Amino acid sequence: MEFKNELNKKCAKIEDILVKYIPREEGFQKNIVKAMKYSLLSGGKRLRPILTLEACKIVGGDIKDAIPFAIAIEMIHTYSLIHDDLPQLDNDDLRRGKPTNHKVFGEDMAILTGDALLNYAFEVMLSGSINKENPEKYLLAINEIAKSSGIEGMIGGQVVDIESEGKIIEKDKLHYIHINKTAALIIGCMRAGAIIGGATEHELNVISCYAKKIGLAFQVVDDILDIEGDEKALGKKVGSDIQRHKSTYPSILGMKTSKEIANELIDEAKSKISEFDDSEFLICLADYIISRKN
Amino acid sequence: MEFKNELNKKCAKIEDILVKYIPREEGFQKNIVKAMKYSLLSGGKRLRPILTLEACKIVGGDIKDAIPFAIAIEMIHTYSLIHDDLPQLDNDDLRRGKPTNHKVFGEDMAILTGDALLNYAFEVMLSGSINKENPEKYLLAINEIAKSSGIEGMIGGQVVDIESEGKIIEKDKLHYIHINKTAALIIGCMRAGAIIGGATEHELNVISCYAKKIGLAFQVVDDILDIEGDEKALGKKVGSDIQRHKSTYPSILGMKTSKEIANELIDEAKSKISEFDDSEFLICLADYIISRKN
Repeated sequence: MEFKNELNKKCAKIEDILVKYIPREEGFQKNIVKAMKYSLLSGGKRLRPILTLEACKIVGGDIKDAIPFAIAIEMIHTYSLIHDDLPQLDNDDLRRGKPTNHKVFGEDMAILTGDALLNYAFEVMLSGSINKENPEKYLLAINEIAKSSGIEGMIGGQVVDIESEGKIIEKDKLHYIHINKTAALIIGCMRAGAIIGGATEHELNVISCYAKKIGLAFQVVDDILDIEGDEKALGKKVGSDIQRHKSTYPSILGMKTSKEIANELIDEAKSKISEFDDSEFLICLADYIISRKN
Repeated sequence: MEFKNELNKKCAKIEDILVKYIPREEGFQKNIVKAMKYSLLSGGKRLRPILTLEACKIVGGDIKDAIPFAIAIEMIHTYSLIHDDLPQLDNDDLRRGKPTNHKVFGEDMAILTGDALLNYAFEVMLSGSINKENPEKYLLAINEIAKSSGIEGMIGGQVVDIESEGKIIEKDKLHYIHINKTAALIIGCMRAGAIIGGATEHELNVISCYAKKIGLAFQVVDDILDIEGDEKALGKKVGSDIQRHKSTYPSILGMKTSKEIANELIDEAKSKISEFDDSEFLICLADYIISRKN
């Protein structure tokens, strides 16, 4: 499999669909749509939507039904970046090589744009759930996304991350941050996709396990790239974790151990997902997560 | 009917239930729960949850099923106040006589607390929707809340409100702001309650009409109170609209006309809702909205 080609194709497909899900720039409120669009279409790997659809496909589902969930998770991811970049939080001027949302639209609009994207994510999921067969399945899928992005998921991770700045924290707290800040959304979107696809309980467990491992590895690699990465490839400054005195895997466990952990996680994820017949893409994707440069 | 007694009893009941829906302060993320709780339990008229349950009851539904929606709408209302009070938006230090969320927990936490409450509102609605008979009905009710709080509802109103500061705006734009910033959520929560209660299409229309009229009147009265209100009763400073050069009903149409409009809206709302046999409370509530001091 020419994995990189396949990944680019899937990414392009997500971008095409995403455009169609952006509300029209009309009415008095059109500027908020402009601001939503700006960040939604400012690039990105589209990893979460791709994983949502793969999880649906691998259990034999029809990916059409999972598309609203794939789009919603990208909206939630995007809102979290917009709020995270605000001066009151991470204070970043650049994201993927472009000015961050508040730099273009102002801090007031950036706060509301984040709110709007989170809310709209639910609107998109609901629009894809109403008038379908088996509405209970859709409620369960929306619930996965909601749980994973809330205080027992992403927001929980962000809060503890912010509170830990400038402090040396224990490994279990760092693990909590990484699992929740990054892995939770990946677990949530894959579970949602799998549920829509009609996964059995066992299939759902296998997918959750894969998602957790690649999600955690993704954040460990993020920490590593913030030290060893190339600014141009990343589209943002490196060294920001050190500057902000953030505890990271490399700062607490050392670079060598961090790389070993990331490798182990990826190996375990690959072995787990290979239970499925059609797992080649997700296996390659796990490898890509550890070798990525951005 | 001793309306004020009845209202206080309903308000107290909502507060009791609300407390039970607040997640436990435990785990690494406990401080976000503390911040959510602070704003959720900082008083308030609890008008939206009361209206949610009334809408369910008046169409013959079991209010138990609507409780998660009543709680969710209060969480959404609270998140919008927390973000609205931020220095980047309205920059308010006091809310209901107490320091605003960011004054107590910091701006970074206040942003995340708002996010957490919006997200948690959906978690609460979903938890009350899964494993119920007629899941489609619950999807439709969540959809009402989502639509009314999004860019075609509350957030749309907030955006245009902010953009209009310092400008003289046309009456249709002011109407847009008021309908969306304030009435939308009241319409959404009453529709959700009515849907859960099993409303017919006609009943739903009557309730929507009532909700729109009292929602709009509520905001017109808000504008009036910002000029004529008593700071102690309001728990916040008066004159903030003038200070911010905000267009309001009194500033555009004059005080006399604004009061006439509010009175008309309330009369129409009362006449509409009196179609229902058991409408006494909602009729009194409409009167209360126009006579309220806070």
